[in-house]
Amino acid sequence: MSLRYLTAGETHGPQLTAIIEGLPSNLELDFEALNFQLQRRQKGHGRGRRMQIETDTANIVGGVRHGRTTGAPVAVIVENKDWKHWTSVMNVEPIEGGDEAKRRVFRPRPGHADLNGGLKYNLRDLRNVLERSSARETAARVAVGAIARQLLATFDIKVAGRVVSIGDVVAADPSPDMSIDELIAVTEESPVRVTDKDAEQKMIELIDRMKAEGDTIGGIVECIVTGLPVGLGSHVQWDRKLDGRIAQAVMSINAFKGVEIGIGFEAGRTPGSKVHDEIMYTEERGFYRASNRLGGFEGGMTNGEPIVVRGVMKPIPTLYKPLASVDIDTKEPFTAQVERSDACAVPAASVVMEHVVAWEVANAFVEKFGGDSVEEIQANLDHYLKQVGAY
Amino acid sequence: MSLRYLTAGETHGPQLTAIIEGLPSNLELDFEALNFQLQRRQKGHGRGRRMQIETDTANIVGGVRHGRTTGAPVAVIVENKDWKHWTSVMNVEPIEGGDEAKRRVFRPRPGHADLNGGLKYNLRDLRNVLERSSARETAARVAVGAIARQLLATFDIKVAGRVVSIGDVVAADPSPDMSIDELIAVTEESPVRVTDKDAEQKMIELIDRMKAEGDTIGGIVECIVTGLPVGLGSHVQWDRKLDGRIAQAVMSINAFKGVEIGIGFEAGRTPGSKVHDEIMYTEERGFYRASNRLGGFEGGMTNGEPIVVRGVMKPIPTLYKPLASVDIDTKEPFTAQVERSDACAVPAASVVMEHVVAWEVANAFVEKFGGDSVEEIQANLDHYLKQVGAY
Amino acid sequence: MSLRYLTAGETHGPQLTAIIEGLPSNLELDFEALNFQLQRRQKGHGRGRRMQIETDTANIVGGVRHGRTTGAPVAVIVENKDWKHWTSVMNVEPIEGGDEAKRRVFRPRPGHADLNGGLKYNLRDLRNVLERSSARETAARVAVGAIARQLLATFDIKVAGRVVSIGDVVAADPSPDMSIDELIAVTEESPVRVTDKDAEQKMIELIDRMKAEGDTIGGIVECIVTGLPVGLGSHVQWDRKLDGRIAQAVMSINAFKGVEIGIGFEAGRTPGSKVHDEIMYTEERGFYRASNRLGGFEGGMTNGEPIVVRGVMKPIPTLYKPLASVDIDTKEPFTAQVERSDACAVPAASVVMEHVVAWEVANAFVEKFGGDSVEEIQANLDHYLKQVGAY
Amino acid sequence: MSLRYLTAGETHGPQLTAIIEGLPSNLELDFEALNFQLQRRQKGHGRGRRMQIETDTANIVGGVRHGRTTGAPVAVIVENKDWKHWTSVMNVEPIEGGDEAKRRVFRPRPGHADLNGGLKYNLRDLRNVLERSSARETAARVAVGAIARQLLATFDIKVAGRVVSIGDVVAADPSPDMSIDELIAVTEESPVRVTDKDAEQKMIELIDRMKAEGDTIGGIVECIVTGLPVGLGSHVQWDRKLDGRIAQAVMSINAFKGVEIGIGFEAGRTPGSKVHDEIMYTEERGFYRASNRLGGFEGGMTNGEPIVVRGVMKPIPTLYKPLASVDIDTKEPFTAQVERSDACAVPAASVVMEHVVAWEVANAFVEKFGGDSVEEIQANLDHYLKQVGAY
Repeated sequence: MSLRYLTAGETHGPQLTAIIEGLPSNLELDFEALNFQLQRRQKGHGRGRRMQIETDTANIVGGVRHGRTTGAPVAVIVENKDWKHWTSVMNVEPIEGGDEAKRRVFRPRPGHADLNGGLKYNLRDLRNVLERSSARETAARVAVGAIARQLLATFDIKVAGRVVSIGDVVAADPSPDMSIDELIAVTEESPVRVTDKDAEQKMIELIDRMKAEGDTIGGIVECIVTGLPVGLGSHVQWDRKLDGRIAQAVMSINAFKGVEIGIGFEAGRTPGSKVHDEIMYTEERGFYRASNRLGGFEGGMTNGEPIVVRGVMKPIPTLYKPLASVDIDTKEPFTAQVERSDACAVPAASVVMEHVVAWEVANAFVEKFGGDSVEEIQANLDHYLKQVGAY
Repeated sequence: MSLRYLTAGETHGPQLTAIIEGLPSNLELDFEALNFQLQRRQKGHGRGRRMQIETDTANIVGGVRHGRTTGAPVAVIVENKDWKHWTSVMNVEPIEGGDEAKRRVFRPRPGHADLNGGLKYNLRDLRNVLERSSARETAARVAVGAIARQLLATFDIKVAGRVVSIGDVVAADPSPDMSIDELIAVTEESPVRVTDKDAEQKMIELIDRMKAEGDTIGGIVECIVTGLPVGLGSHVQWDRKLDGRIAQAVMSINAFKGVEIGIGFEAGRTPGSKVHDEIMYTEERGFYRASNRLGGFEGGMTNGEPIVVRGVMKPIPTLYKPLASVDIDTKEPFTAQVERSDACAVPAASVVMEHVVAWEVANAFVEKFGGDSVEEIQANLDHYLKQVGAY
Repeated sequence: MSLRYLTAGETHGPQLTAIIEGLPSNLELDFEALNFQLQRRQKGHGRGRRMQIETDTANIVGGVRHGRTTGAPVAVIVENKDWKHWTSVMNVEPIEGGDEAKRRVFRPRPGHADLNGGLKYNLRDLRNVLERSSARETAARVAVGAIARQLLATFDIKVAGRVVSIGDVVAADPSPDMSIDELIAVTEESPVRVTDKDAEQKMIELIDRMKAEGDTIGGIVECIVTGLPVGLGSHVQWDRKLDGRIAQAVMSINAFKGVEIGIGFEAGRTPGSKVHDEIMYTEERGFYRASNRLGGFEGGMTNGEPIVVRGVMKPIPTLYKPLASVDIDTKEPFTAQVERSDACAVPAASVVMEHVVAWEVANAFVEKFGGDSVEEIQANLDHYLKQVGAY
Repeated sequence: MSLRYLTAGETHGPQLTAIIEGLPSNLELDFEALNFQLQRRQKGHGRGRRMQIETDTANIVGGVRHGRTTGAPVAVIVENKDWKHWTSVMNVEPIEGGDEAKRRVFRPRPGHADLNGGLKYNLRDLRNVLERSSARETAARVAVGAIARQLLATFDIKVAGRVVSIGDVVAADPSPDMSIDELIAVTEESPVRVTDKDAEQKMIELIDRMKAEGDTIGGIVECIVTGLPVGLGSHVQWDRKLDGRIAQAVMSINAFKGVEIGIGFEAGRTPGSKVHDEIMYTEERGFYRASNRLGGFEGGMTNGEPIVVRGVMKPIPTLYKPLASVDIDTKEPFTAQVERSDACAVPAASVVMEHVVAWEVANAFVEKFGGDSVEEIQANLDHYLKQVGAY
C-alpha cells in the first residue's frame, strides 16, 4: 500500500475535496506554490468567462501542522467561489420546484458523459452526471499532484509541461540546451505554453479563429520529468510498469484520447537501428544514454533519462456550433445546448498532465524507497544512489 | 474486488504460470479455442526460429472441472517445450560452474530492461532480468485474456485485432460493412493480419528487407470490441475510467510506446465540430451514434459503440545490426550481443493487445453486473438492457 | 473495485473529512438518521466532559443532490465545534512560539500510538501522532458506516449493537424472541446499551467506581446483522472471506484487542457435535439452520443466518492513575500526563463497531450484486433470491 | 503496491499453485526449510490417514535461480501425491458417466462451505465447492508464508507458534526465560505443540477420547514474532493498521472463529491501570516496555515488543457422529456424510497461523523499508534502526 487519493465534488457544488494518503511526514509544504499550480490550470489563451471569475485556492484541513506533513492523510479543499448562486440547484436536501428550479438537464451533449452516465446510473436529470464528469474535477487532481510535485522537488526531481501542438500548428521542440528550469520559466510566460514564439502567434490566431467560428480545437501536450533515479517501476508484473500507470493517469484526464512515451507513435515507423538509446559510461556520470528516444523507460522502469510523455486532448465538446442529439424525455432530436464556452483548453491540459504524471512518479518513488519521513526517504535514496554508482 | 491475475515464469524456465481470480462459475471453457489463441500469438510473418519449435498449449490445473469453471481461481500453465536444454542454466538450486555454465549476461542490450533491471535489483547476472522481462511473458497474458474473451463471448461481446501499419506501410481501413466475424476471419488468413491485400504484400516485402539488412521494424495495431452495453467503466473517479485502464494494459505490453482511442492523436488536429459523435434515436435501436470517432468512450464509460483502441510497438531491440553498450564488469564499450532474431513481431503484438483489452473489458463487465455464476450475470445483464431500453 | 473510503482529520483540527466511493445512485439519504448515528457515538455512561460540549453533525459536500446519491463520491465533513480554541496549536501554517504555544507533547502515554508513532514518523512533537491516532477519528468511520447502513436498510438488512460486558459484569443475552427492531430500541434506552436491567445497574456502578478510583474499564461489544442473503463473501481466496474482512475492520477500531464470530473462542472448548448448525428445509423458508453458533458464516460466506460478531475494547489508556513513561527529550522517567478523562467508552465502541461492520457488509453486498443504481441492485438481488429459492 | 499472493488448486486436484509477487531479489532460499514447514503442517496428534500418505513438498517454477530470488514473481507448486486416483473425478475436461463417476456431492455438510457455496455459485455438485474450501488450501498458504518467514529471518525476525489449549485443557504459558529458539525447538518435539508436558498428556488423551467417541475438538493457538523494529503498520488510516491486517489473515484460516492480540479478551475484564505497558528507557536498550500485555501493538503499529496473536479453531465439522442436513435434490433430511476423519487439527492450525502472520509482517516490513534487493532493504533497515536509536 503506497500513495492513494480520492477526490469528490461537483463543478457547481460547494467545494472539491481530496484526501491524499501515504505521504511521508516532515514534508515542508509551500502553500503559495500549491496555489500557484491551481492558478496555472486556470490560465491560457482560449479559456472562457468562468476562469476569470474564479481563482482557485487550496485549503488544507488535515494532515499538515505548522507547515509540515505529519504522516496523517492530507485533506485538501478547493472552494467553489460561485457557490452562492448554486445553493438551491445543487442542494443536498430535496428542494421545491420543477425542472427549472433544479436546472434539470435532459438534453445530452455529444462528447460528454451525459447520456451514458444517465443510462448507467439510471438518472433522469443529466445534471447529476455532468456535475461530476466536468473537467472542473481536474482542479482537485492538480491540488493532489502539486503536493506530489513538492515531495519530488525535495529530492530534486522536477516536472515541466509544454504544449506541442494546437490543431495543425506544431511548436518547434525546445532547444536541447534548455534546462528544465528554463523550460518551466519560458512556457510560463507564454499564453499557450510553448517556447516557440512563432508557433505561439499562430496558435493564438487559430484559437481566436475557432472561437469566432463557434468551434473548438484540441492539441497535444508534453510532460518532462528530470532528476529521476534509475529503477522506478518494475518489469516483473504488468501492473508494476510505471509507463503503464502513467498511461492510465494521462488517458483518464478529461477529453484525453491518447498517450505516448518518448518518440511514441513514431516508433512504429522507424527501423530498430534508429529507435533505441545506446548505453554509455564514464566514471563521472556512471551509465547514461546517448539519446532519449524511449522517453526514459525500458521494461516499464525508469532508466535514468528524463521521462517524456505526451497526451492528446480532443477539442472541448461544448460548442456554440451545435451537434445533433436527442431529448431523453420526448426522444425528439435537437441540437445540443451550450453549458460552457472555452474555445481551447490545451494550455490548461498541459498543467493537468504535469500533475497526474507527478503523482504517478511520486507513488513509484515512495514504493521504491519506503520510509515514513522525508529524512528516512532521503537516507534510503542516498544509499541506493551509492549502490547504483558502485555497480 | 473484481477480477485479478498474476503471472510468473521466465522465458527459459520450466513454465509460465498464471492465476486468474474472480471468474464466475459455470463458464464452459473451450480448451481448443484457448490453445488457438496461444498459437495465434506465435504466428506472423517476420518471426524467428524459436516460434517454429514451440507450439504453446495451456494446461489448466485449478478452478475448472468437467469443462466448466467452479468459481475457484483458475491456474493456467504454459510449458516451455525447450526446457530440457535449460535445466542447468535456469536451475532453482545453486549449480557448479562459472559464467559460461550459467550463461551469465553481463552485456546489457539497449532497449531492454537489462541494465535498469540489473541496477534496480542489484543483480550482476542480467539474465535474472531478461528472463522475466522477455516478451515470452505475453503468452501468459494471452492465456489469461483468452479466458476473459470466452467469458465475454458468452454475452455476445466479441474482440478482434488487426495490424494498422508496419513501418511506413499503412493498411487501408476495413470496409465499414465488414462484420466483426468477417474481420476476424480475414485477418486470420493474412500473415500480417490485415484486410488490405495490397498493403499485405508491401508489409511482407518491408519485413523481408529489414531482415536482410539485419534491422527490425515496428508498427501500429488496433483492437475492436463489439456488443458492449453502455456504461462499463465510470466517470466518477479517475481510476474507474475504463479507457484509462485499457491504456495502462496496452502500454504495459512489452515494447509498446503509445496507445490511443478512437481517432486518438488525430483528435488534436481536428476542430470540435468534426470530432464528436452525434446522438441518434430510433424506437428499434434506442440511442445510438451517427459515428464512432471517440472509439466507444465518453467520460471514461462505454457509450454502446464498439471500443476501438490502437497501440504502437517499437521495433524489437535485439538486432543483428548491433548498438553500442557497456560491459557491466569492465565498463568497456562493446556492441550489443544478439539473443533473438525476429525482424518484426507486430502481427503477434496485435494478438497480445486483443487479449489485454479483453481482460480489462471483462473486468469492467464483472464489476458492473456482479453475480457469481454465468447464469446470474446473464440475468443481471438482461435486466440492465431492459432498463436501458426503457430509459 | 467496489466500495472504498478514506478519512482525514485530527482530533483538534478544523474537521474530520471522509470520501466514500462506489455508492450506487438514487439512494435516498436520511440526514437526520445520519446525525443520529453520530450522536449515538457520543453517548453512554462513563464519557467525560468533551462529549457534552460537542454534538457531531455530518455535512455532505459532494455526491448527493436533492436528497439522493448521484453515483459520484460522497464527501462528508464533521466539524470540530471546539476548533476556535485550537486554530493556533493546530495551524497548517508555521506559528511563532515554542513548545507551550504549540502545546508540544514530548511525554508519550503508554497504551497510545505516541511513542511508536513518533519513532516511525521521526516526529519530536508527539501531538503530530496523537491528534490522528485519537479515537475521535471513529466519528468519521461512523459517518461512513451510517451511509452504508442506509444502503443496507434499503434492502431490509438491519444492524444492531449491544454491550456484552463491562469489566466483569456480563449482561444476559437478549431473549431469542426479541426482534432486531426491539433490540435496537431497548439498547438505545440503556446508558450502557444492554437489555439486561440488572447488569445495567451493576455496569453503571462499576464505571462510577472506576472513575472515582481514577481508573478505567473496557468491555465486550456485539454486533448483529439480519436480513442477509446467503453468499456474501467467498471461500475461493483468503482475502475474499467476509469474516476475515470484518475481523480486520473490528480489530482496527481504536483500543480493540480481539474479535470473534458466533460462539468465537468458546468454539475452542466445545466438541464438534455441539458447534455446528444443522441444516433444515421447509418449502416456505427454504434452507435454514437450527441454530446459529457459527455467527452466520461458513467458509467465509454468509449462510443466511444473522451475522454475530463480538469485539473487545481495552480500557482507555488515558488515566488519572498514571503509568510510568519516559520523556523523549531528557530520557527521564515520569508518570504519564492526562489528555482526556472518560472512564469507560464501551457503549460508544458498540456504536462504532456497528458501523465498521455495516461498511464491510455493504461492500460485500455491492460486490455480489453489482449494479450502479439502487433500482438495479434491487433487481439483481430479487433475481438472486429467486434463484436461491428455486435451488 | 507491496507483497501480493494468489493461490489456486483443489484438494483432490493435480496441485496447489501459488504466485508470490513483490519479493526482493537476492533472497537465498533454503528449500529444505521450506519443505520442513510444509511437513510441520501435516503433523500433530489427531490427524487422520491422509496426512500419512502425503508428504508435501514445494516445487518452485519461477522467480528463483541458482538458489536466490531474482525479484520476479515466485511460483510455487505443491503436488497432490494422490492425484492418480482422482484424474477422472477432477478432470478439467467433461467426462462420461453420472453422479457416481463424478463423485458428485449433493448432501451438504453443516459447518462447511458446501451449501452456501452451492447456492452462491449456482452449483448442483457441491464437490465444486468443497474441493476449494477444503483446508488443503492452507498448504499453499504455508508455502507462501514459509518464504515470507525466510525473508524475515534474513533480518533476524523470528516466528514461533504454540498450542494454548485443546478443548478445556489449557497448557501453562512457557517460562518467560524461554527464548524464541527454545520455544520453537520444544514445541517441535511435542505432538500437540506445547511446552507443558502435563497438558500435553491430557491433550493427547482428550483427542483420543474424542476420536473414540466419533467426535472432534478444537482449540486455541498462539503465534509470537520477535526481533521486530518499532513502527510496522500505521495509525493513520484504518486499513494500514497491522493488527487489523493480522486479524483478517488469521480469521480467514479455515475453521477459525476468533483472533486476539496480547491479553485480548482479557482486556475487557481488567482495569486500565493493569492493562498498559509502561515505557522504560536505558541507554543500551533505548525505549522498551516493562510488560507486553498489548501484544506488541499500539495504534496499529508495532512498538518493538514481540507480536503475540492468538486464534481459535473450531472443531473439524466432518464427523463420524453425524449432524442433520438436507439433500439438495430431494430436499429430504439426512445425516451428514463423512469426507475425512481428523479428530483434531489444532497443532496443524498452529503451524498455519504462524505462516499467515509471517506473511502480514513481511508485507508491512517491505512496505516500511522499500528496496528491491535484500541488500538494499538491509541498508534501509540499518539506517532506520540508527535513527530510532538516536531519537
